[in-house]
Amino acid sequence: MTAGDTEPRAAVPAVVAPIADAAGPHVAGLVAAVESRLRDVAGPGEEAVDLAGTAAVAAGGKRLRPLLAIVVAGAAAGDDDERARAAVRAGVALELIHTATLAHDDVLDAAPLRRGRPTAFAEHGRAAATCLGDALFAAAFAELAAGGSTSAVQALAGACRELAQGELLQRADAWRTDVDEARYLERCRLKTGALFAAAATLGAQVGGVAPEPYARFATAIGVAFQLFDDVLDVVGPPEVTGKPRGTDLLDGTVTLPLLLARAEDPVLRELDLRALDPAGAAAACDRIAATGATVATERRARELVDVALAALPPDGDAGRDRALRLIGRGVVDRRL
Amino acid sequence: MTAGDTEPRAAVPAVVAPIADAAGPHVAGLVAAVESRLRDVAGPGEEAVDLAGTAAVAAGGKRLRPLLAIVVAGAAAGDDDERARAAVRAGVALELIHTATLAHDDVLDAAPLRRGRPTAFAEHGRAAATCLGDALFAAAFAELAAGGSTSAVQALAGACRELAQGELLQRADAWRTDVDEARYLERCRLKTGALFAAAATLGAQVGGVAPEPYARFATAIGVAFQLFDDVLDVVGPPEVTGKPRGTDLLDGTVTLPLLLARAEDPVLRELDLRALDPAGAAAACDRIAATGATVATERRARELVDVALAALPPDGDAGRDRALRLIGRGVVDRRL
Repeated sequence: MTAGDTEPRAAVPAVVAPIADAAGPHVAGLVAAVESRLRDVAGPGEEAVDLAGTAAVAAGGKRLRPLLAIVVAGAAAGDDDERARAAVRAGVALELIHTATLAHDDVLDAAPLRRGRPTAFAEHGRAAATCLGDALFAAAFAELAAGGSTSAVQALAGACRELAQGELLQRADAWRTDVDEARYLERCRLKTGALFAAAATLGAQVGGVAPEPYARFATAIGVAFQLFDDVLDVVGPPEVTGKPRGTDLLDGTVTLPLLLARAEDPVLRELDLRALDPAGAAAACDRIAATGATVATERRARELVDVALAALPPDGDAGRDRALRLIGRGVVDRRL
Repeated sequence: MTAGDTEPRAAVPAVVAPIADAAGPHVAGLVAAVESRLRDVAGPGEEAVDLAGTAAVAAGGKRLRPLLAIVVAGAAAGDDDERARAAVRAGVALELIHTATLAHDDVLDAAPLRRGRPTAFAEHGRAAATCLGDALFAAAFAELAAGGSTSAVQALAGACRELAQGELLQRADAWRTDVDEARYLERCRLKTGALFAAAATLGAQVGGVAPEPYARFATAIGVAFQLFDDVLDVVGPPEVTGKPRGTDLLDGTVTLPLLLARAEDPVLRELDLRALDPAGAAAACDRIAATGATVATERRARELVDVALAALPPDGDAGRDRALRLIGRGVVDRRL
């Protein structure tokens, strides 16, 4: 291994490094290329917001969606330069869309922190963060279109509409006590599953395999990921999540742990979310956890992942197969 | 003429009907097809916001950007079904992007009214209007990608980034008294010229002609259009503009009429925009107009259009040529 080879490996977040390794020797390089390209395209050109864009992209965590696309693209993306470039473009576009939606969510939530860092909203204000999100959306489509695949653009645009629908549904449901589990799960599919599915679809297009089974797998993984995320909002700890416990409750977002806990605890059934302060939200989190609702929610998430893993198509690409199983287990074991 | 032929003609806004007629007999049908398709794709699927999307699209005015694309596509879009469909797709995508940016602008301005009607922000709230904008952006890219042209997607994505930059620049410049004319004009180019230019580029791609001269023409027309818009904010009347005079001043948006008037009127030089109330804004508008600054701004706009018209390439498509000249004159005569 030469000195030049160490750089791509270093760009892979430690938590996903075993997945990248399992997928194949080409994957670390592609993940590093996504990282590098993201930094080039993050800013929409106006100085203050270049900074915000760069910060938003830099704060980006595990790059799970690009990794999923690269993993599903499979060994073909390691053997063929054109496919490798397409996989990187897909990864960049997916992460830009993800970052754009986070920027807009943070504006709507007036969120001061994300992953323990100040949000673009907090640092640059409502207008800059809204425009930043719009610019990142546009950058994502430009990046994907540059690869010449309109089917990729259509897949990404479809996911974006679902993301917006999911966000709307969540806000339409805010403070409502009559949301049922089916509606909650549909919200998770739209808010989180859709972009995971788009990652799988884009990856499958690059790899030249039928996208449907991978998109179904990715949807289930995305929903499970959201379920664990909603559990984390209840159980924390804040040092891990980078935000106080009960943020969802304070925003009026009714998630599965609260839905399940309400069936067990009459105090929670009577709880007026609009009257909560941060201390009250933390106390409500304790009550939710005491009913076993967070454990039950995790169990549903595990079941989703188990079913998704069992349904994965047998294919000849051992690296893809190993890596997808690690992604599924990583979601379940809350390492992702 | 059969009964069925009257419907497309009816869908063309009266103010642009002469332009459509001049461009060719196929244009009214294409404009009507844009209108019909817009209504199909306006809603992102969630009921409350389907309504908001439909209302936002229905409130849409003159459809100048779709018309420009269809006009630049020229006679080729009348002779060839595939080109006709591509022209309609381009028109739909352009109008969706325009509507999306208006939805986000209205959120950032907390605007109660646009064109005399309640905004999506006013009727459905900040979150719904933000998500609506995101969904309309996605719908625009889906619509364009469905036509199979990645160069069209790239042109639209480029314009979207410029729109976001222009919006950012305007907000970065808010309340600032040191903005000069060059920076103001660059803001107009980004905010308004870029999407006009994209309309011309998409139209030229459909028509199979070189886009650059039409894009340059459209940029100038767009900037002139913005200059007249900024004059209207000063001179009104509100019955025509659908909003009170001096809205820009109250938002801290320094436009060319104020820039020019400041050079003439020391009271305006000392004016503290942050201290203005609506009555004070109306009084400031009177002072601005009294300096001749609005007339001078209109003169600049006319000069821009004259130069753009003179530079239009001679081509063999008489309908396109006539219609573009009518668009230029329509902007200058403030009928558009």
